[in-house]
Amino acid sequence: MSALNTDLYELTMAAGYFMAGKTEDIATFELMVRRLPEQRNFLVAAGLQQAAEYLLNFQFKREEIAYLRSLRQFRRTPPEFFDYLAQLRFTGELFAMREGTPVFANEPLAIVRAPLIQAQIVETYLLSTLAHQTSIASKAARCVLAAQGRQIVEFGSRRAHSPNAAVLSARAAYIGGCDGTSNAQAGMMFDIPVSGTAAHSWTMAFENEEESFRALQKLLGQDTVYLLDTYDTLSGAETAVRVGRPMWGVRLDSGDLDTLSREVRLILDRANLGDTRIMATGDLDEFRIERLIQAQAPIDSFGVGTQLTTSADAPALPAVYKLVELNSGGTERYTAKFSGEKSTVPAAKQVYRYRHCDAVAMFNECNPDFKGEPLLRPVISKGALVEPLPCVRAVRSHCLEAVRSLPERLFSLQDALPYEVTIGPPLLDLAESVRAEHLERVLPETAN
Amino acid sequence: MSALNTDLYELTMAAGYFMAGKTEDIATFELMVRRLPEQRNFLVAAGLQQAAEYLLNFQFKREEIAYLRSLRQFRRTPPEFFDYLAQLRFTGELFAMREGTPVFANEPLAIVRAPLIQAQIVETYLLSTLAHQTSIASKAARCVLAAQGRQIVEFGSRRAHSPNAAVLSARAAYIGGCDGTSNAQAGMMFDIPVSGTAAHSWTMAFENEEESFRALQKLLGQDTVYLLDTYDTLSGAETAVRVGRPMWGVRLDSGDLDTLSREVRLILDRANLGDTRIMATGDLDEFRIERLIQAQAPIDSFGVGTQLTTSADAPALPAVYKLVELNSGGTERYTAKFSGEKSTVPAAKQVYRYRHCDAVAMFNECNPDFKGEPLLRPVISKGALVEPLPCVRAVRSHCLEAVRSLPERLFSLQDALPYEVTIGPPLLDLAESVRAEHLERVLPETAN
Repeated sequence: MSALNTDLYELTMAAGYFMAGKTEDIATFELMVRRLPEQRNFLVAAGLQQAAEYLLNFQFKREEIAYLRSLRQFRRTPPEFFDYLAQLRFTGELFAMREGTPVFANEPLAIVRAPLIQAQIVETYLLSTLAHQTSIASKAARCVLAAQGRQIVEFGSRRAHSPNAAVLSARAAYIGGCDGTSNAQAGMMFDIPVSGTAAHSWTMAFENEEESFRALQKLLGQDTVYLLDTYDTLSGAETAVRVGRPMWGVRLDSGDLDTLSREVRLILDRANLGDTRIMATGDLDEFRIERLIQAQAPIDSFGVGTQLTTSADAPALPAVYKLVELNSGGTERYTAKFSGEKSTVPAAKQVYRYRHCDAVAMFNECNPDFKGEPLLRPVISKGALVEPLPCVRAVRSHCLEAVRSLPERLFSLQDALPYEVTIGPPLLDLAESVRAEHLERVLPETAN
Repeated sequence: MSALNTDLYELTMAAGYFMAGKTEDIATFELMVRRLPEQRNFLVAAGLQQAAEYLLNFQFKREEIAYLRSLRQFRRTPPEFFDYLAQLRFTGELFAMREGTPVFANEPLAIVRAPLIQAQIVETYLLSTLAHQTSIASKAARCVLAAQGRQIVEFGSRRAHSPNAAVLSARAAYIGGCDGTSNAQAGMMFDIPVSGTAAHSWTMAFENEEESFRALQKLLGQDTVYLLDTYDTLSGAETAVRVGRPMWGVRLDSGDLDTLSREVRLILDRANLGDTRIMATGDLDEFRIERLIQAQAPIDSFGVGTQLTTSADAPALPAVYKLVELNSGGTERYTAKFSGEKSTVPAAKQVYRYRHCDAVAMFNECNPDFKGEPLLRPVISKGALVEPLPCVRAVRSHCLEAVRSLPERLFSLQDALPYEVTIGPPLLDLAESVRAEHLERVLPETAN
C-alpha cells in the first residue's frame, strides 16, 4: 500500500492545484459504476475495508517524493509542493455503502469529501480496490444463486491477476456468498473457511492411484476427497470404492460432468457409499452450474476457479470517480461533465433503499418522505475511522440477506427488467440549472 | 509476498508427502499455457522477475505456521511437519524463458526441479505471477502492432484487479512494447517512463475551461496536454487554441475519435499549431486502434486502459503446472496425466527456436541436429540466482526484437495459420511408453 500507487496525473494535478492556490478547496467526488455489465442484474459492493485502510495510512515515503522530484513533469513545480506532499495525510470524509450491499448503475458506492488535492490523488487506488472486489463479489453472488444451496468454494487463485489479487478475490468471493476459498493466506488474513482436495500431481507422485488415495486418507481422514480423473474418471471411482471410508467424497475435474457424476454416483451407491459426496470442478461458471442443477446432476459441491476469480465475462467494471461539488474560497459550486454519454449528475447524493426500488436524492436534501434506508454511511470522518468495520463473515451474512430481499426477477442469470432507481426532481432540476449556467458562461467565450 | 499465499491443498499435499516419507523425492514440474486464447497468435512471456524473487525469498512466518496448525485439515499431521515447514526454503532449480520471449501453446514457459514438497507448494504463486503478466504483455504486443509505430501508453491502473495488479500490469505492458505507463509506483519500481495529462476533474475544478488550461500550461509547459471533452470537444479545441503554446498537444477521450480527431486537427492546423499532437483515449483496444489507423485518423498517441490492463477479451490464460518427472528413492520416473483433452506429455523439455518454427525435445536429449536457440535457461540453481535478471528496459528491447522476428502472418489481430511447433519423436515415443506402462499397471488392478 503506497500513496505513490496512483496515476501520475493525479500527482501533477495535485502540484497544479497547489500552484493555483487551491490547497483549501474542498472537493466532493463520487465513485460509481456507470452501467451494469451484460447479464448482471445487480452488483455487490465490496472492497471497502481495503479502501479505508488505504486512506487511513495514506502517506508518501521520502524516496517516493525524491522520485517525483526527479521527473520531467515536476521540473516547474516549486519545492514547497514536495514539503507539502511529505506531510500530506488523508484528513477528509469517506461515505460508503456497507460491503455486501447490492448496488445498481449510477448509484454512488462511495463518496469522498476532502481537500481537493487529497481527494484527487486517491482516485486511482480507490477505483481499482472497490471495482475489483465489487466485480468478484457480484460474480460470486451469481454462482451462489445458480447453485441453489449447494456448496460453492472459490478455487481460482492460480488464475488471478497476481498473487495479491488472488487473496482479495478470495475475500470478495466469500463476501458474495461463497462458502470458502482455497487460498490459505486469505483464510488467515480474513478468517475465511479454507478447503482443498488434492491435485493430479499428488496421484502421479505415488506408484499408483490406490496408493495415492490411501496416503490421502491417512492425512485427511473424513475430510478426504479423492480426485478421480488423473488417469480415467470411472476407474478412479472404482479405486475410491476400494479404498473406501473414511472419506468426504470424490472430485470430478474434467469430461462431461453431468454424465460422469451420474455414473460415479452409481458406482459409489452400489458400494454402499451413498452418504459420500461428489464435488465438481473444471472451468465452471454460473451458467454451467445452472445447467448441471437443472439436469439434476448428483453434484453436492462446486469448486469455481478462473471464471469467478477473474469475473472473466466482465473482467472490469466501468467504475468512475467524478467531481460533483467544489467549495473554493468559501463558494460552493456544483460540478458535472456534459460530454454525451459520459455526462454526470452534479451534487453529492444519498441512495435510499425501499422494499423493491431505490431513490437517489441530494445528500443534504431534507424530505420527510424519504423513509427508505439511506445506504451511504459515514466510514471515515476527519481522517479517522467512525466505527470499526465489520468482519467478512458479518459482511457475507449481510450480503446473503440483502440479495435475498431483491425482487426475484433479478436472480435470473440473464438480463431481467432492471431494478427501479429513481432520481429525485430536485437533483434533476439542479443538473439542468448547472448545465444551463455552464452554457451561459462558456458560450460567450467560445463565440470569440 | 508470503509462502502462505497458495492453495491450501498444496500445503496438505506437502504434509501428506512428508508423512509418506517423500521429503527426498525430486520433482520436475512444467509451467505452460495449454492453448492460446482466441485471436492470439503468440504470447509474450513475462513475470519471471517476480517469480524468481518469490522463490528466493520463500519462507513461512511463525504465525503462518501457527495458523496452519489450527486448521482442521492438519489435525492428523505430525508436529515434525511444522518444524520442517518452518525451516523450508527453496533449494531447487528454475529454468525459464527470458521475459519478453514469444511463446506458444504447450511450450514450457518455466520448469521447476526441486524437492517435491517445495515444488508443489510454489505452484499457485508461480502460475498467477507468470500467467497474469504474460497475458498483459501479450495484449500489449498486439496493441503495439496495431499502432504501427505510434506511441502507446498504458493508462489502466484504475481498472486493474487491485492496486498491486495495476503496478504489475504496467510492468508487463511496458515489456510488451508500450512506451510507458501512467502508474507512478510502477515508474519508480521498474524505471518505466511515466506520463499523464489531466482529468476532467481538473477542468471542473476551475471557474472555466480556459482558466484550467492556463493553469495546466503553467505547470507542464511544453508537456501540456489539454483534455478537450469535459464540456464539448470542439469548443475545447478552440479553448486550446486560445491558450496555445507551449503545449505538447490535446487529448480526446470520448465520442467518435475518427471524426473528432480530423475536426480537431483542422482547428489546430488553422491556428498554426500543426506541430502539436493529438492523443486519443477512451475504451481503446488493438482493434479500435487498427481501425483508426486504417482510416488514417490523425492521432499521434494512444492511451490504452481497461482492455489492456485486464486483457479484457482474454482475462485469464489456461496456464497449468504439471508433474513430468519424479525421482523417488533413487528411481527416475516419467509422469503424465491421461484424461482426455487435459492429457500431458511426460519428461522435462527444452524448446529450440529456429528461424520460423520451434522444436520441443527432451531436456537432456543430446542431438547434434538441434541448432536452434534453446529458450529455457537456468535462472535459479540450488536456490540461488544464476545471474542477475535484466532490467525491464532490456526485457522490452528483447521483446520488440523477438516479436519482429516472428513470421509476419502472426502480426494479424485475427487468428492466423499457427506457428509451427514440432515435438521430437523421442518425446512422443516416451509419452507412448509411459502410457502403455501405466495401463499395464492399472488395468489388472481395476479388473479386480
